[in-house]
Amino acid sequence: MELSVVLVKPLYEGNVGSAARVMKNFGVRDLVLIKPCKLEKEASDMAVHAKEILKRAKKYSSFEAAIRGFDLVVGTTAESTDKDDYFTRIAISPEELRKKLEKVNGKMALVFGPEDSGLPNEELERCDMVVTIPTSKNYRSMNLSHAVAIILYELTKATSYKRQATSPRLSGKKEKDLIVENFRAIVNFIKYPKPKERRKIFNVMLTRIMGRAQVTGREANTLIGVLKKIKKRLER
Amino acid sequence: MELSVVLVKPLYEGNVGSAARVMKNFGVRDLVLIKPCKLEKEASDMAVHAKEILKRAKKYSSFEAAIRGFDLVVGTTAESTDKDDYFTRIAISPEELRKKLEKVNGKMALVFGPEDSGLPNEELERCDMVVTIPTSKNYRSMNLSHAVAIILYELTKATSYKRQATSPRLSGKKEKDLIVENFRAIVNFIKYPKPKERRKIFNVMLTRIMGRAQVTGREANTLIGVLKKIKKRLER
Repeated sequence: MELSVVLVKPLYEGNVGSAARVMKNFGVRDLVLIKPCKLEKEASDMAVHAKEILKRAKKYSSFEAAIRGFDLVVGTTAESTDKDDYFTRIAISPEELRKKLEKVNGKMALVFGPEDSGLPNEELERCDMVVTIPTSKNYRSMNLSHAVAIILYELTKATSYKRQATSPRLSGKKEKDLIVENFRAIVNFIKYPKPKERRKIFNVMLTRIMGRAQVTGREANTLIGVLKKIKKRLER
Repeated sequence: MELSVVLVKPLYEGNVGSAARVMKNFGVRDLVLIKPCKLEKEASDMAVHAKEILKRAKKYSSFEAAIRGFDLVVGTTAESTDKDDYFTRIAISPEELRKKLEKVNGKMALVFGPEDSGLPNEELERCDMVVTIPTSKNYRSMNLSHAVAIILYELTKATSYKRQATSPRLSGKKEKDLIVENFRAIVNFIKYPKPKERRKIFNVMLTRIMGRAQVTGREANTLIGVLKKIKKRLER
């Protein structure tokens, strides 16, 4: 899916600038504006390093003109319901939307309404799907750029955007076993915990902690080195 | 998990207000501020219906004082790496964090650094885990309140994130610190790893392993007991 963000009649230029910034954070470059407020210094300030997204934004004066050319139009709302006789506000979660999009291609418009009132029914009715962010029931209305941030975060999880959350090599079973074995030698040497059965429990506990911690190869080797040294010093 | 948001030296009041708003959107009420900028009209305007979160925010002048009393301290960074010899910036994704938190209870601090520089190493080193939002490589730095929004959105997805009577008690920060302190005394005593700087790195590594492993109170106390005994035997 090729993603565009469509802001319908945004009222505050700071929000438009913030939306541009978070679009760039998630590698989305196409911004469409329908009858926006004036975009001056604050929009530019909030965009920080995404000023070119603001500059290149396409402007339209009608919803119909703006969504022409898209394969899929997804509206957003804070007021969803499952008791909607008109289906207008029956919404899915951003996660469900991501799963639906995983297997399809095309040009998709993600449409956000004005800050005060959101998308009106007549525009929601034109959308192929409606998405809502699950929030606390006590306060559903989100800042416009926060809603853009969350939906883009969720949708780009699935795509080719490189994950930065890093995955170093995990330690193998052998390395983890070596940690536990060396620790076992130490607790047996100092004869603590007492009695002996509790030392066996200690080993199981250690195995579990190492497993849950997802110790990396480097961490395991550092730990093994330290434990061997402790053992040697104790045995002196 | 009971969640608090900790903002370290926020520079722009608008971001603090926006963070308060999105906290309320996701049902998180406890805001902690360390040496914040002045909070005046703009903070209040951006908070909209979450002004009471701003008003009740606890203020501290040091990081240590602010994190006291939390069981789990999770730092955030835009600059993560998997080639980190110091373990300081090895980070997991918000999704991985949510999965780790699903089965545990306790008080958790979610810590965000200043807008311009993020959390410095010395504060990241004090964190049990570090989380990073996967973004485009071309523009990693996010607006502060966007980062708060995305992580709270992800963490509150899990319904099991609410208190579960059956979960074991997670060890507190104090207990985890005691594990690390006792281990530190041992590695200093045996003067290994070498040189001294590598022993400091070892401590950070240990802090992270314990944080990721979600050590329970019982496990922590067993470990502390064993480490104290090892220390005593070495000193003989």
